[in-house]
Amino acid sequence: MAAARRIMARCDALAELSDLATGIRRVYLSAEHRLANKRVGAWMREAGMAVWQDAAGSICGRYAGSVEDAPALVVGSHLDTVPNAGRYDGILGVLLGIAAVEALNGQARRLPFPVEVVGFGEEEGVRFGTTLITSRAFAGTWDANWLTLRDAADVDLAAAMKGFGLPPEAIADASRAANPPFAYLEPHIEQGPVLENRNLPLGVVNAIVGCRRFLARVDGAAGHAGTMPMRLRRDALAGAAEAVTRLEALARRRDAVATVGQLDCRPGAVNVVPGTVEFSVDVRAGDDARRDALVAEFEAELTGLCAARNLVLSWRETHDASAAQCAPWLQAAFSDVLRELGTEPLSLDSGAGHDAMAVAELCDVGMLFIRCADGVSHHPDESVTATDVAWALAALQRTLEHIAQMRT
Amino acid sequence: MAAARRIMARCDALAELSDLATGIRRVYLSAEHRLANKRVGAWMREAGMAVWQDAAGSICGRYAGSVEDAPALVVGSHLDTVPNAGRYDGILGVLLGIAAVEALNGQARRLPFPVEVVGFGEEEGVRFGTTLITSRAFAGTWDANWLTLRDAADVDLAAAMKGFGLPPEAIADASRAANPPFAYLEPHIEQGPVLENRNLPLGVVNAIVGCRRFLARVDGAAGHAGTMPMRLRRDALAGAAEAVTRLEALARRRDAVATVGQLDCRPGAVNVVPGTVEFSVDVRAGDDARRDALVAEFEAELTGLCAARNLVLSWRETHDASAAQCAPWLQAAFSDVLRELGTEPLSLDSGAGHDAMAVAELCDVGMLFIRCADGVSHHPDESVTATDVAWALAALQRTLEHIAQMRT
Repeated sequence: MAAARRIMARCDALAELSDLATGIRRVYLSAEHRLANKRVGAWMREAGMAVWQDAAGSICGRYAGSVEDAPALVVGSHLDTVPNAGRYDGILGVLLGIAAVEALNGQARRLPFPVEVVGFGEEEGVRFGTTLITSRAFAGTWDANWLTLRDAADVDLAAAMKGFGLPPEAIADASRAANPPFAYLEPHIEQGPVLENRNLPLGVVNAIVGCRRFLARVDGAAGHAGTMPMRLRRDALAGAAEAVTRLEALARRRDAVATVGQLDCRPGAVNVVPGTVEFSVDVRAGDDARRDALVAEFEAELTGLCAARNLVLSWRETHDASAAQCAPWLQAAFSDVLRELGTEPLSLDSGAGHDAMAVAELCDVGMLFIRCADGVSHHPDESVTATDVAWALAALQRTLEHIAQMRT
Repeated sequence: MAAARRIMARCDALAELSDLATGIRRVYLSAEHRLANKRVGAWMREAGMAVWQDAAGSICGRYAGSVEDAPALVVGSHLDTVPNAGRYDGILGVLLGIAAVEALNGQARRLPFPVEVVGFGEEEGVRFGTTLITSRAFAGTWDANWLTLRDAADVDLAAAMKGFGLPPEAIADASRAANPPFAYLEPHIEQGPVLENRNLPLGVVNAIVGCRRFLARVDGAAGHAGTMPMRLRRDALAGAAEAVTRLEALARRRDAVATVGQLDCRPGAVNVVPGTVEFSVDVRAGDDARRDALVAEFEAELTGLCAARNLVLSWRETHDASAAQCAPWLQAAFSDVLRELGTEPLSLDSGAGHDAMAVAELCDVGMLFIRCADGVSHHPDESVTATDVAWALAALQRTLEHIAQMRT
């Protein structure tokens, strides 16, 4: 518990590095980012690691292994935050990695591979509107067009990098494509209520879900709420409501999540039958084929119900991101360890995106979820217990040992 | 057809009396109202009527009967309009009344009762936000508090009346409570698609529907569209959508109309499960008991589905107006005449309010609906055919004869 409490205290210390007077906000390539890297780098050094900042601004530490030139195992997550953030999202994973290395170093123990810890500088997409910038640099999938992305103050990414002391032309140096790690482990708060609901401290991520988004527009005919009989109506909202209900039923049946988060009803008067409704559709599943099947099924139902109601449908895709699978052998390693520790190894999908999505293009990835209160994240109420952090640290340490045995 | 064409031409002439550069708007106690009364009064005089403006600003004409001191039959509707109006809503009924009297006068024929025509000055509620002001004055249900109602230019009703030459203290003179007519007939465009859909020129109104309105607020819990599993969601929009679908089914089953015209979904982000939805409910039926039963049924279903979904419901009534029945003997008179003329006497409810609602507190009322194109009203596209106007005039003339025979 002492180690877990120190991790919690370090989360508190990083929470002070904010550009808001009250509340936490720490964005990519900011003064607070520089201070966070400095502080986290110092903790890495204390834990026995060699420390550097990579060409994209991520802070990296390396604890040498017993075998010369062996590929590394990387533990990581991100240090940037959303506006008015909590203090654990991303950060906790980085600090767990450092604490696990610290424990090895305290025993002067070397694994048959180097253990690296990376604190990515940009995951949330707050400053430049694009997510996973630094983990994509790490994975070697950096997009050169990003240098012209502009922040709210009209500073472009190239200028922000220079201001941070990073030459944009050296960005390829951040890529690990030439010497990839053999595994990337990301401990992270769940950001959902499943573990709390199942009364479990930890969970093993099966996949980071893929997401497709659509904008549907349903046109009927506005009409007088008194004089237009039910059977002659072309009520756009009644059609959209049926669609929302059917989407919900499909998602439940197909083991996915589907959400209508926006719905705009026009003309929007108490005494007028709605003529036009626009609504968003967000569909996610751990398996792209399952997600796509659900989308196709919903599209067919929506088309059918609009035809039956004499409504005109327009439907366009606005976003499409594939699911990222966690490596089965890393899922198995986590699960074995959780069983050894005496907690059920619940397997679950991550509905939110993570750096592991980007790193999955570079090497095998595994994610360990940590219970958070009420499933709340991206909010000052984000909360984890020291006990659960102790569970996570124990699980991470044992998993490193477990993998070491596998690779000996 | 000549008489019908003259009615159409008079509708066109009144359409010129607008305070908009393009489009029609003619509000209560305005310069255009004064001009409309002058023009309509002249037509009444031409038709052989004695003409006066009542204490509320309605223009009235009286064609004497053959029997001294017999109670009158009144034909009427209103001369004011909504903004960007059509040219028939209200106006057509007044002009049909004048044309019917003109026909009697042309034959020097007297009925055993006086026939009056009234062009009410205020039905739509545009200027002071309150509807049926002049027909309530006529019915003797004027509310003294109305004198302090203010228009958009902050002119109160009392001042507007004075500006029109009407002493507010004389308003009771408009009341016909001391010498009520024995019947009030209001021909009016349907403002709905039923007659067009049934391919009928005319319809007999059974009742002017009562209307109850509610504002429902459903509170669930906002959540991450990716991390919140379906079974743990408290999705306010999914609940509201189910409610919209159920309301629609109930209205169909219960021979009423029910409308959700406004729906506001919060926080309203593509990737956030909605936490709060507010929506309006408008329920109308020709029979108050049937309408109230539907409201009670819906309220029970809404309460049940919110409980099942763990949503918190608040539900408050914002409006309650009783239905006004048309007198069975007047419905029968219209129906007999339509049958004689060789058109099916379709009985239908009026979903919109009319002056007849107010006058129903004074005397028996009957309403004759005239087919309008696409059910459109309150819009420049409002349209009727001269043929249907000829049908309406023939029906009104014959109904007057029919009633005359009944009262001889």
